Amino acid sequence: MKLPDIDFNKMGGLVPVIAQDSDTGEILMLAFANKEAVKLTLQTGRAHYYSRSRKKIWEKGASSGHIQEVAEVRLDCDNDSLLYKVHQRVGACHTGYYSCFHKVIEKNGELRISGKKVFNPEDIYKKY
Amino acid sequence: MKLPDIDFNKMGGLVPVIAQDSDTGEILMLAFANKEAVKLTLQTGRAHYYSRSRKKIWEKGASSGHIQEVAEVRLDCDNDSLLYKVHQRVGACHTGYYSCFHKVIEKNGELRISGKKVFNPEDIYKKY
Repeated sequence: MKLPDIDFNKMGGLVPVIAQDSDTGEILMLAFANKEAVKLTLQTGRAHYYSRSRKKIWEKGASSGHIQEVAEVRLDCDNDSLLYKVHQRVGACHTGYYSCFHKVIEKNGELRISGKKVFNPEDIYKKY
Repeated sequence: MKLPDIDFNKMGGLVPVIAQDSDTGEILMLAFANKEAVKLTLQTGRAHYYSRSRKKIWEKGASSGHIQEVAEVRLDCDNDSLLYKVHQRVGACHTGYYSCFHKVIEKNGELRISGKKVFNPEDIYKKY
């Protein structure tokens, strides 16, 4: 499978990827992917990313079970950002929230939590 | 105004910012912001970003008129990505589409356009 022209050069081999709930439109997370991760995503139908800290490809949910089944992959006008529209199992955030974007920055700079917890992260991650 | 703890260090002073239509949930674009651009966004209520190529802050729509009125700013769990929920005037993409993410990558790697054109870019950008 040959990928279309995607500009991985601007970020040293990576592009930012937005994961969006394909049913509700809610934004779940932002991560990064390299060429191989994008190919794996298209081939398997499950969201794959590249971890900048661990320096390797990871499949979302591989250890937690909270996988993302990919309904659609989109590319932006400049060919340097991707969008995965996904069916999220359980929740996307490692803190237990459905979405990683659960903190609102108010006009005065203060933070307010806005989102729902869908699992207890201690149940999932206590083994690490 | 004091910003909350945002991790600008991972990307040399920048964080990726997703712009999402606050009414429909459609994702409009992905860009980057530095600290000053985030402050300007919160203070003015209009989306500001930082251009990596031009190396300066820009207000979306400053030349085209296609501004983004910001309804809400959100921060993710790791404090290294932002979400602007916006009211988009006319269209977000410089190519004339409402959203920058108007190209679908099919499973075989081929591209398919999926999106609506809402203006003729030649009417806006011919002066540049």
